[in-house]
Amino acid sequence: MMMQQTTAPAPLRPVSAPFGAAVPPPEGAGGATAARGFRAAGIRAGFRKEPGRLDLALVVADEPCACAAVFTKNVFCSAPVAVSREQLDGAGYGTARAVVVNSGNANAATGEAGLEAARRTAQIAADAVGCPASEVLVASTGVIGVHLPLDPFVSGVPAAAAALSIAGGSDAARAIMTTDTRPKEAVATFSGDGAGYDGCTFTVGGMAKGSGMIMPDMATMIAVLTTDAPVAPDALHGALVRAVGESFNKVTVDSDTSTNDSCFLFASGAAASGGAPAFDPNGPAFERFEEALHAVCQSLARAMASDGEGATRLVTVNVSGAATPADADAAARAVANSPLVKTAVYGHDANWGRIAAAIGKSGATFRQEDAAIDIMGMPVCRGGLTVAFDEDEALRRFEAPEVVIDVDLGAGDEETTVWTCDLTHDYVTINGDYRS
Amino acid sequence: MMMQQTTAPAPLRPVSAPFGAAVPPPEGAGGATAARGFRAAGIRAGFRKEPGRLDLALVVADEPCACAAVFTKNVFCSAPVAVSREQLDGAGYGTARAVVVNSGNANAATGEAGLEAARRTAQIAADAVGCPASEVLVASTGVIGVHLPLDPFVSGVPAAAAALSIAGGSDAARAIMTTDTRPKEAVATFSGDGAGYDGCTFTVGGMAKGSGMIMPDMATMIAVLTTDAPVAPDALHGALVRAVGESFNKVTVDSDTSTNDSCFLFASGAAASGGAPAFDPNGPAFERFEEALHAVCQSLARAMASDGEGATRLVTVNVSGAATPADADAAARAVANSPLVKTAVYGHDANWGRIAAAIGKSGATFRQEDAAIDIMGMPVCRGGLTVAFDEDEALRRFEAPEVVIDVDLGAGDEETTVWTCDLTHDYVTINGDYRS
Repeated sequence: MMMQQTTAPAPLRPVSAPFGAAVPPPEGAGGATAARGFRAAGIRAGFRKEPGRLDLALVVADEPCACAAVFTKNVFCSAPVAVSREQLDGAGYGTARAVVVNSGNANAATGEAGLEAARRTAQIAADAVGCPASEVLVASTGVIGVHLPLDPFVSGVPAAAAALSIAGGSDAARAIMTTDTRPKEAVATFSGDGAGYDGCTFTVGGMAKGSGMIMPDMATMIAVLTTDAPVAPDALHGALVRAVGESFNKVTVDSDTSTNDSCFLFASGAAASGGAPAFDPNGPAFERFEEALHAVCQSLARAMASDGEGATRLVTVNVSGAATPADADAAARAVANSPLVKTAVYGHDANWGRIAAAIGKSGATFRQEDAAIDIMGMPVCRGGLTVAFDEDEALRRFEAPEVVIDVDLGAGDEETTVWTCDLTHDYVTINGDYRS
Repeated sequence: MMMQQTTAPAPLRPVSAPFGAAVPPPEGAGGATAARGFRAAGIRAGFRKEPGRLDLALVVADEPCACAAVFTKNVFCSAPVAVSREQLDGAGYGTARAVVVNSGNANAATGEAGLEAARRTAQIAADAVGCPASEVLVASTGVIGVHLPLDPFVSGVPAAAAALSIAGGSDAARAIMTTDTRPKEAVATFSGDGAGYDGCTFTVGGMAKGSGMIMPDMATMIAVLTTDAPVAPDALHGALVRAVGESFNKVTVDSDTSTNDSCFLFASGAAASGGAPAFDPNGPAFERFEEALHAVCQSLARAMASDGEGATRLVTVNVSGAATPADADAAARAVANSPLVKTAVYGHDANWGRIAAAIGKSGATFRQEDAAIDIMGMPVCRGGLTVAFDEDEALRRFEAPEVVIDVDLGAGDEETTVWTCDLTHDYVTINGDYRS
């Protein structure tokens, strides 16, 4: 018989989620154009074979503005990542005006020719927008090892520039998709009342692509975020790094970084009253800005995690009671990366043993007799021992689109959340198919 | 078109494999009984439901002898691991006489009752063998969270003790299997000539179980190794730790350690002439002993890696040119743990991009323009760029039971090898099935 406790234990409380929810963009805008001071377009330039498939996105700020970016740490970084880093002088922030994203070709493993093509792309966009090439960032996603053709940029970028609008943000979100099954956009707003910007409402929004799974062609994570809050470039970069760290970098499906991951954030300041200064990084307005940014990034990150190939469930792993932030992260990531846990979710199996094996080998410090685990809000392990649960209720709960796993290590106060998806037959089929 | 080099590059040389090959046990012996001074038995005691299934193994040394052991580092360690550690005074080595292994029940997540059951098991075996309980080690593998019944030990251990023989080593190898599709045994011999033990031939042998995949019941790695070389306990432990580090710990399939992993090594000294001293740890005889031990462990480790659920191929990942041993290991492990690489092997896809993404995110220090990759001896990447290869030849080579991936990071001289298997539909089916 399974070891049983005589009284049903209380569920673990969900890990604190301090950031408000993000929402879809308002009517007539896209995620990247909901904030004031930005326009966008998404067109078919010809990088992709499928008829009618949008494959070129252009996002342009009305004025040069503060910009920050975070890129993949993968040693095999692509040409557009290298060139965009150049544009920001290697610091990750500066002033920029526009970003050009093409799907269908990653311009990766393309050597010097690829770098040149990425620089030419920036120049073509600069000419069309009317700004210096140094103010244009570039990103690409798609097949690797194939030379990036420039003709589609030569004809497409001017067409996109002529079509820029606030409503064009929706097309832009579609134009950057590769393996995504749907466009991913999110918006959050916050008020300046009582924070030194009375009467102002600020917006943070963004679009992203990435299914959390890396395709044969390396389906990359790309996000373009915008805000109409006034934030100086270096403070913007700090906020972006923190937000990415708690969102996109907490998504893990089968491989954490591709060669092309890029996340851009532009701040126009257009929602501040004329002459209002940039947010004090230590003040309340900046704090609200960071909350809104986190909400947008987490919404986009969760959308990517749940959109993995063959995925049927978003899986959220909350770890609490860790001795250090690194322990919390290691434990959560071990669970989220475990094919055994992910196939168990797919098979609707509330088996805590696999979760235990994952946290037990993660390197996190804890004692097994202190460990507690809940699956979908149902206690399954207390004190390192099995807790009986209602199997029928478990099956009912497995019908939900999100499966939550809570782990309390009982070794401290640190906590974190990591997102992933389940591992299914379709994943093997899609990724095991012979390259055509 | 794919970027092409005009002259076909030379293949990377395979990573040095200095240890000689191990062989199956000789007729009339098992892996654990090929060395002189050991007998074994494998019987059906009743832990498992299937009729006729052997589930209790006993390995006994003729005399108390030097013993060393290495156990799982998983925080969720099982009762038999805790008790065996106790028996060796927490040092990992000492003097022992026997090891009892049952399959069908892992005695894990069983609390104090489980610890007591493991200690009782040792006592039962001690009584049957005629030695102190402190000289008996225990191991279990099978379902977790279920109380370990003692009746099968009470009736089975004396029966096993009465059946001990050299030939019984084969039955013992079968009795410890759970998800294995075949028993795993290996033997290596070395001469004492010119090393201070003229005229002596020494043997190292062993049996192991573990399919490299962790089942819902946590199919564990257990190995019982024996030698008739004279080696003192502390030196024996050092040799075992090094051998395990280069073999079992280099096998990674979906999760590196279960709650029950145990590896035991006994040294009877029975092949040394009477009165011959234990091997000098700095002398040539010990060096030959370590080579033989590595050969046996690597043979068993490769067998485990290739026997994963649903596996169709052994996958060997060789990384060379790393700046540090840790870098080599991180890079090899990233490739071997990547579901994208493993599904590509399953799909007979010689796609180097997935391998590149894995090493690129591994944390190993290198520059992409220095990276070289071969798949099955065919160059596919040089200087970080694609090399054209014969697709038909690749398909032919994929028919072999072992797929070798060679990576040269071009950043130093360190190298390592990690083994895994491919990821198939069957894996998802087996591990996604609802627990009955």
